[in-house]
Amino acid sequence: MTTTDYEPNIVLSNVEYKVVGTRPIRHDGHDKVTGRALYGADFTTAGLLHAKVLRSPHAHARIVSIDPSKALEMPGVRAVVTASDLPPSGDNVGAKRDRDNVLASDKVLYKGHAVVGVAALSAHAAEEAAALIEVEYEVLPPVITVEQAMAEGATLLHDDLFTSELGEQTDTPSNVAEHFQHRKGDIDKGFAEADVIVEREYRAKTVHQGYIEPHNATALWNSDGRLHVWCSTQGSFTVRDSLASLLDMPVSQIRVTPMEIGGGFGGKIPVYLEPVAALLSKKTGQAVKMVMSRADVFEASGPTCGSWSRVKIGGKRDGTITAAEVELAFEAGAYPGSPVGAGAMCALAPYDIENGVVDGYDVVVNKPKTAAYRAPGAPNAAFAVEQAVDELAQKLSMDPIELRLKNAAKEGTRRVDGPTFNRVGLVETLEAMRDHPHYSAPLGDNQGRGVAVGFWFNIGFDSSVNLAVNADGAVILTEGSTDIGGTRASISMQAAEVLGIPAEDIRPSVVDTDSIGFTAVTGGSRTTFATGWAAYEAAQSVKQQMIERAASIWDVEADSVSMEDGVIRSTADPELNMTFKELAGQLGRTGGGISASASVSPTGVGGSFAGNIVDVEVDPDTGKTDVVRFTAVQDVGKAIHPSYVEGQMQGGSVQGIGWALNEEYYMNDGGGMANSTLLDYRMPTSLDLPMIDTVIVEIANPGHPYGVRGVGEANIIPPTPAVANALQQATGTRLFETPMNPVAILEAAKANGS
Amino acid sequence: MTTTDYEPNIVLSNVEYKVVGTRPIRHDGHDKVTGRALYGADFTTAGLLHAKVLRSPHAHARIVSIDPSKALEMPGVRAVVTASDLPPSGDNVGAKRDRDNVLASDKVLYKGHAVVGVAALSAHAAEEAAALIEVEYEVLPPVITVEQAMAEGATLLHDDLFTSELGEQTDTPSNVAEHFQHRKGDIDKGFAEADVIVEREYRAKTVHQGYIEPHNATALWNSDGRLHVWCSTQGSFTVRDSLASLLDMPVSQIRVTPMEIGGGFGGKIPVYLEPVAALLSKKTGQAVKMVMSRADVFEASGPTCGSWSRVKIGGKRDGTITAAEVELAFEAGAYPGSPVGAGAMCALAPYDIENGVVDGYDVVVNKPKTAAYRAPGAPNAAFAVEQAVDELAQKLSMDPIELRLKNAAKEGTRRVDGPTFNRVGLVETLEAMRDHPHYSAPLGDNQGRGVAVGFWFNIGFDSSVNLAVNADGAVILTEGSTDIGGTRASISMQAAEVLGIPAEDIRPSVVDTDSIGFTAVTGGSRTTFATGWAAYEAAQSVKQQMIERAASIWDVEADSVSMEDGVIRSTADPELNMTFKELAGQLGRTGGGISASASVSPTGVGGSFAGNIVDVEVDPDTGKTDVVRFTAVQDVGKAIHPSYVEGQMQGGSVQGIGWALNEEYYMNDGGGMANSTLLDYRMPTSLDLPMIDTVIVEIANPGHPYGVRGVGEANIIPPTPAVANALQQATGTRLFETPMNPVAILEAAKANGS
Repeated sequence: MTTTDYEPNIVLSNVEYKVVGTRPIRHDGHDKVTGRALYGADFTTAGLLHAKVLRSPHAHARIVSIDPSKALEMPGVRAVVTASDLPPSGDNVGAKRDRDNVLASDKVLYKGHAVVGVAALSAHAAEEAAALIEVEYEVLPPVITVEQAMAEGATLLHDDLFTSELGEQTDTPSNVAEHFQHRKGDIDKGFAEADVIVEREYRAKTVHQGYIEPHNATALWNSDGRLHVWCSTQGSFTVRDSLASLLDMPVSQIRVTPMEIGGGFGGKIPVYLEPVAALLSKKTGQAVKMVMSRADVFEASGPTCGSWSRVKIGGKRDGTITAAEVELAFEAGAYPGSPVGAGAMCALAPYDIENGVVDGYDVVVNKPKTAAYRAPGAPNAAFAVEQAVDELAQKLSMDPIELRLKNAAKEGTRRVDGPTFNRVGLVETLEAMRDHPHYSAPLGDNQGRGVAVGFWFNIGFDSSVNLAVNADGAVILTEGSTDIGGTRASISMQAAEVLGIPAEDIRPSVVDTDSIGFTAVTGGSRTTFATGWAAYEAAQSVKQQMIERAASIWDVEADSVSMEDGVIRSTADPELNMTFKELAGQLGRTGGGISASASVSPTGVGGSFAGNIVDVEVDPDTGKTDVVRFTAVQDVGKAIHPSYVEGQMQGGSVQGIGWALNEEYYMNDGGGMANSTLLDYRMPTSLDLPMIDTVIVEIANPGHPYGVRGVGEANIIPPTPAVANALQQATGTRLFETPMNPVAILEAAKANGS
Repeated sequence: MTTTDYEPNIVLSNVEYKVVGTRPIRHDGHDKVTGRALYGADFTTAGLLHAKVLRSPHAHARIVSIDPSKALEMPGVRAVVTASDLPPSGDNVGAKRDRDNVLASDKVLYKGHAVVGVAALSAHAAEEAAALIEVEYEVLPPVITVEQAMAEGATLLHDDLFTSELGEQTDTPSNVAEHFQHRKGDIDKGFAEADVIVEREYRAKTVHQGYIEPHNATALWNSDGRLHVWCSTQGSFTVRDSLASLLDMPVSQIRVTPMEIGGGFGGKIPVYLEPVAALLSKKTGQAVKMVMSRADVFEASGPTCGSWSRVKIGGKRDGTITAAEVELAFEAGAYPGSPVGAGAMCALAPYDIENGVVDGYDVVVNKPKTAAYRAPGAPNAAFAVEQAVDELAQKLSMDPIELRLKNAAKEGTRRVDGPTFNRVGLVETLEAMRDHPHYSAPLGDNQGRGVAVGFWFNIGFDSSVNLAVNADGAVILTEGSTDIGGTRASISMQAAEVLGIPAEDIRPSVVDTDSIGFTAVTGGSRTTFATGWAAYEAAQSVKQQMIERAASIWDVEADSVSMEDGVIRSTADPELNMTFKELAGQLGRTGGGISASASVSPTGVGGSFAGNIVDVEVDPDTGKTDVVRFTAVQDVGKAIHPSYVEGQMQGGSVQGIGWALNEEYYMNDGGGMANSTLLDYRMPTSLDLPMIDTVIVEIANPGHPYGVRGVGEANIIPPTPAVANALQQATGTRLFETPMNPVAILEAAKANGS
């Protein structure tokens, strides 16, 4: 299905580096390929117990009683825990909700909601014991969509949830946790100036991140009161902080060892099993291991939100967008906290619009509490806005890329949600799309081509790196960021660049929370940016110490010594020079080893724009869509390791295609997910897809030493609208809801009379 | 058997500290007491193979052939390795000897010498397979003592070993690897001035460190060429360096994870199983685990040396020692490298002597290559010198402590081996002994009292520590020093003292060689001194960063902010103050976390003197000796954690008592050890001993921030001569050889006609 030979095409590059921008083999490659890498499911220790969770069969119900007596009588069963084993939350409603999502106390709010944890000598015994626990429920009607949830007289999930309405707390219980608004200019004046207006509603179904590795956790609550947890997580310190809050203990009483992680995409940030395993370990005094089934993953870990959106957008004949009005109502799942905030930030970000307004609604429904999923919220918003822009271009008879270029946000543009852009690369991304051969290639029968763009702001936050020089000139590196997409490589390379040594000479390790300074989650596309910066800073310290050591050996002033490309030279005496490796070998007898530590919390975050060109072919008889060509373009600032940047762009694109065409939580009448297996929840495989061609645009982020922006997220934003726009061209019919599967396409065609 | 209530008695103390000098519970206490701590034997991983070593049954033989075919045919056997699997040593004689000690190539040089390694699916299969390997030997006469080895016409162990005679290489093969000499003053003139001269020969038998945990190692040679080793060692970096040399690979290709260690005392510095497991892993591609039996430990890991010594010492009537001549011939075991060098440094160190000479001989014999054992070499030398001094005191009718005080080395004394003492605490140690109630307590029938002193120089070398501040005010600490005697506590306490926080608020971890800067072995009494210093330096950096952060929060100059006792204050505005903990909680939102790294290589090492008063009671019928009272005095500089200092003093004393009274390698005629079990090799238990009373003398080492000297070794030096001197007083007969067991006592009494 490959449409073009795969040849990465760097459009714009910045400074030339020696290591940054090259493609070394990842440091953990052998471990991963040979199966040596240790994941949470591989973890074992002495006296290990295994535990399972009894989950709610109902989407919405009151818990009347829990009777675990039959389970506890079963041979091999060691303990059960319920919500009553968690610390009391008192008046803290937020804490109660967090704890209730771990183990439900008074109500279950989604099918799969955890109710009881059972520890036994084996996983099978634990499962059997869970089935013996008797829970009496008073079943309540489920609320599944934001429209149901926001409807007059809707069943309420929480009787203590009061809407925050534009910052003011109201006093009527509701399923709407929050309504906020961003506003810029005069929206009425803007629409008055428009020659053409498009207004539509859009819906997106709940989808899951679909990581291959299920959640897992092993906990050991030691006799000294310290808790040690081994788990699969995007952030060991995040797990530590979450457990400290849930279990009401100081962070330093908790040690989290991150095992290797088999995918997360945002979904491995919250804790689910960890606190249950911890409580069971506290009760039994033994280590307790828990692993989710695939159904557990779908039904009880956070998917991303389904959503309802409305977009009204107006433009002048010359293509100037004069006003845009966006309403976003996103599912939070069972407890408040949908990604509507981020969606509202990103919705209109690609456009330099005088007059705009974005309303956001955070709405609880009887589904698992949503978690982050790659640019959380932004794909839902872009599915709406980028289709409306496409329709506007059609009404204005403009090329959709030219319309976007005319209105493209750039340095100095103030976003509708407030911030003003520093140097960003949307224009260059759009130009790369426009100039790409793909955009002018001929289309076949039943084919259509769509484009769309997306923005993700990226984040900074704390990161720490330690370095030390080995006697053979290699450098050990420890970091607190879990390595999901090759960050051992991208972080090592930034240290190597400073030191002028090969990336292979860095020995990176991801260590536990007792062994490195605080490091925020691997998420928000921050790791290569922020942890890479920590590596840069630590390497600068090593470099300075190496210079000082050389100066001391040569008995010259340190400021007369320089180190470039791994060679240390005295400017005072050209005879005096040695390589990094040579000096490394002398450290032991000239004053001892050299090590450095850096903890950073960088500002200077640079957002990333991504764009897609996608060609689809629709079978007119079956409605089946093939993506026949796909080009992903993204401004990544600087690609530290272009192969992994391309991998991120390809991965995000594929997830977006799955969301566009296939994936959804298919809900039955009782409010349960009807397709919680990887056979029925159909994610695209390599056989379903063409080669995802990538174009890396490099507009250096002025806020980072190497210009890094962060690459993990923006790329999942344009695929859903780009596919929708392509389908519209292929079929003549526009679809306003994901997934745009064969049934939807045939039904829309029928409704359209085609 | 307790003779006094145990009440530690600090004789002299220095500065008053808040944390240093207190007795917090050790951080790893719960793990150790509850059995949670993971030792090498607990380690397991996927696809683990188990291996055993086929060892030589002969003390001295040429290997004619090795035929492993029957073993390889056995089901479950995966690989065998012999010396030919090690890299060739070429002309490097030293490298060949190191490799031969791992797997013998042409000759076996002691019973238990490793010949073949066998890996199989289980340890039992490996053991069975080892028994099927056919090795043909040409047996040679064994050489067991230095006197046999140095005798005219002695059988030679090595035909390529040529004596280094006072620095000059000779060209006659010999069993004497080296003869060196230290000389000060005019020895003939010194003896001419003496009124009384004592001259005696002394012998000490080979003894073992007797750690409870046998050697163990697991190795995984990964497909990327990196070797990971998990083992019980005093120095993970030492293992890394040894393996790099033995296996001819760069240090950065090797990662060593130190498991907990169940005792070492110097004997867990060399590698035995590690390279064999590594080679077997390389051949099989699987992880390979090896654990020694107790017999293996005795017969194939390094004991300390047996020795022959001669002392001639002369004094004037007034007690002035005018001259001392010492000859030390120490067993190296199968390959050169006895601790005679250290023995020669320490032999006369307690005495300020005008005229002295010490000759040292490093002699190979058919016993396992010796390893370090707590102040290696010094007890052998002290057994001789301290008895001779005792006899001199008797001949001069002087109190033995007063004689020592009259001649005591002090600041400015130049040692016979060259160095000049800085501030040392021998005088204060002797005064503490003299003034202790024990020294004037009455003795009963068949009882005798002996005293002796000893000196150990201690070492510095490289150490690294990383710190990072947690949001709750606790501080994580990582170190490369394996924790044998409570160094997690003693190192953490030095960081806590700087930061003004409790020791319990430090969270120490011993990490692997990929996770911390180079750190030398835990040995030479260096860890609390040097790694503690690294903790001190890293804590100073954290302190400075905390001050700067507070200044930034308060918007004042950093040099107007101070931090004392865990409180940060602005001198500019007394209203501005906060605790360490409060500031720790604010780091995340005021610029990010704080971490620090320190690698140090401190000079300023301070030697330690120890002295004993020991009372023995000898059963006149059986010759059985009971130690009825024992007081250990030691100048430790500053006791960071007095309980662990006392523990070190007690432990060294007990090992010295065992050596004095019971322990020996009892050799059969074939040159094999006849008592290689803990039943037959009799170490003293708590039932055999009185309470070991301790007196900590604190003469601060001016070369360390807290005055630390190092405490682990000096305390094993005086017990053997102190017991000998006590036995002489109890029985009227002096014994010149260890062990001074009932047989020796009765035979000496008979010879003496009593």
